Amino acid sequence: MRGVLEIPDHLSPVQDLIGDGLIRVERAFDDQLVSDLPPVDDLCEHIERYRGKMLRPTLVILCGAAVHESLAPLLGSRDFDAIATEAHARAGAVSEMVHMATLVHDDVLDEADVRRRGQTVNALRGNELAVMLGDYLIASAYELCSRFDSPVPARVIGRASSVMCTGELLQLHSRENASLDEATYFEILERKTGALIGAACRLGALCTLGFDRTDDPRTQALERFGVQLGVAFQIQDDLLDLTGDESVVGKSVRKDLEKGKLTFPLIHHLAHADPKLRGRTLALVEHPTAQGIDADIRAMLRATGSIDASRAVAARLVDDAKKALGSIPEGPGKDMLCLMADAVVDRAY
Amino acid sequence: MRGVLEIPDHLSPVQDLIGDGLIRVERAFDDQLVSDLPPVDDLCEHIERYRGKMLRPTLVILCGAAVHESLAPLLGSRDFDAIATEAHARAGAVSEMVHMATLVHDDVLDEADVRRRGQTVNALRGNELAVMLGDYLIASAYELCSRFDSPVPARVIGRASSVMCTGELLQLHSRENASLDEATYFEILERKTGALIGAACRLGALCTLGFDRTDDPRTQALERFGVQLGVAFQIQDDLLDLTGDESVVGKSVRKDLEKGKLTFPLIHHLAHADPKLRGRTLALVEHPTAQGIDADIRAMLRATGSIDASRAVAARLVDDAKKALGSIPEGPGKDMLCLMADAVVDRAY
Repeated sequence: MRGVLEIPDHLSPVQDLIGDGLIRVERAFDDQLVSDLPPVDDLCEHIERYRGKMLRPTLVILCGAAVHESLAPLLGSRDFDAIATEAHARAGAVSEMVHMATLVHDDVLDEADVRRRGQTVNALRGNELAVMLGDYLIASAYELCSRFDSPVPARVIGRASSVMCTGELLQLHSRENASLDEATYFEILERKTGALIGAACRLGALCTLGFDRTDDPRTQALERFGVQLGVAFQIQDDLLDLTGDESVVGKSVRKDLEKGKLTFPLIHHLAHADPKLRGRTLALVEHPTAQGIDADIRAMLRATGSIDASRAVAARLVDDAKKALGSIPEGPGKDMLCLMADAVVDRAY
Repeated sequence: MRGVLEIPDHLSPVQDLIGDGLIRVERAFDDQLVSDLPPVDDLCEHIERYRGKMLRPTLVILCGAAVHESLAPLLGSRDFDAIATEAHARAGAVSEMVHMATLVHDDVLDEADVRRRGQTVNALRGNELAVMLGDYLIASAYELCSRFDSPVPARVIGRASSVMCTGELLQLHSRENASLDEATYFEILERKTGALIGAACRLGALCTLGFDRTDDPRTQALERFGVQLGVAFQIQDDLLDLTGDESVVGKSVRKDLEKGKLTFPLIHHLAHADPKLRGRTLALVEHPTAQGIDADIRAMLRATGSIDASRAVAARLVDDAKKALGSIPEGPGKDMLCLMADAVVDRAY
């Protein structure tokens, strides 16, 4: 996310704060995964390639900063450690570890389709390893999270993880359901993607305010911000999958359709297409192996205005996210959060 | 476990305590897994069939009772709720939920071998569901565990889960390694099976004594008891797999060998066989599809005294487990723990 943003001058200390904090996050992350067993240590190297954009730890740091009473003077004296503390680093590492566990297990689901690739034995060993590596990441995340003096962080992360799994289960249940409606899809995204990002935002604020402040409206506001941002981010991903440049889309579209996963643009399209067009789209969805699918999908989506509708929904969610920040004091922390929120929609164009 | 035990008269109130406590455990278990999403609720019914012997919740209740200062009078007045409290019920539900998650994910590993069964699509959907169901169980266990006022239970369970995963990873790494030594195998079992059973015992004691008593030698003694018992239980399972009645062994032996998993009796055998016999055994291990494997394996194990050696190791572990109870006060709680420990070895004959 950081690479994409153009940072105005007055926010460059915040950018430095994030950079500084993420180094501590990585240290907390690596320290937790160190094992006394060499084979386990070796396996953890595999995990490195799953490390993402660090969106969740960035939000932990930034939400912690946004509610800090002395943010401006501390930024001025570049006393970053006082803003992004060890608690923030730990919470950031936990949120990234849970996220990586889901990526590892998503890989199992993807690689489970061994019929077309024919590499049965490798896929088999890969699946087993991935299931266990994912489990090890989840367990390590919870172990790290239980090191706080308070049970509150474990409560926030435990709840978010469990909600996230219900989102995955609901999505699995909804596969190959061509009449999946928008409301259910939003429910899936709020759970699957929104919950953990919301938890990261809430946890960041709690690390600054104290874990006895769960009722503080600012922690709830930041959680709402995170949930909305997460859903917007996912809708945006759906859209890029279907309308991005051909080589990228080719890969992603095949993956989504193979998995029978209907995303927002297609759900909108199927709800608004006339019967004939709907039939053509469904035929395409049911036989996703056809070549030249990319161009077809785009033309179909355009015919129902589904690309613009998706962009509008993502933009509305980003607006809602920013509106949720009403109780957060004006300042560089809040400014950076808004900038990140806007960047989600900007990616759409 | 209970069905197997012959309970002496003076321990029948303890048996009633366990029965009573397990009802509360099941309630805590079911309450946690209730979802507002009907499809998720439906899926949880699948989980029912994974419910095991409730060994871990039984140990939570029993270890809690064993360190209770007023055990005898409370048993006398049948005030079971005061011994097996809501805290014990929650800790029991958590330990069973983590255990069930590993069973669900073990099923993924087993069912992943779809080459011989030819049910690719079902196995695929089954795998995906099982990965997610397992994740949901783990997340739910942690969520439930974070509801305590103290972070200590989450710390105990988080640590045990993470150690358990390293055991699984070490076992995966050791597959098809015919020179796997006994020390490494015990390391695997202590982690894979011992850690969670030890954690259940420790947690049971902490629920009675208070979560600020982590340094109490009784909690550590009960943890050691649980770890040793768990390893003995597993060695016993290994032995029954290889030497039990033919129909059972046929199924189990094929499974273990198919997975390239060497268990204690075979490790002992390979270490003690002369080169010619070792070669024959390795040929059998490498081509486990051969019919008549059952009788062969047994004769081979007998030639190196590996069946007796396995029984001796299990018996020694049970003795060690009982010796670990030195600091636990004499009484019906400790008596029942010893009875359970003996039952593990008795199963071997």
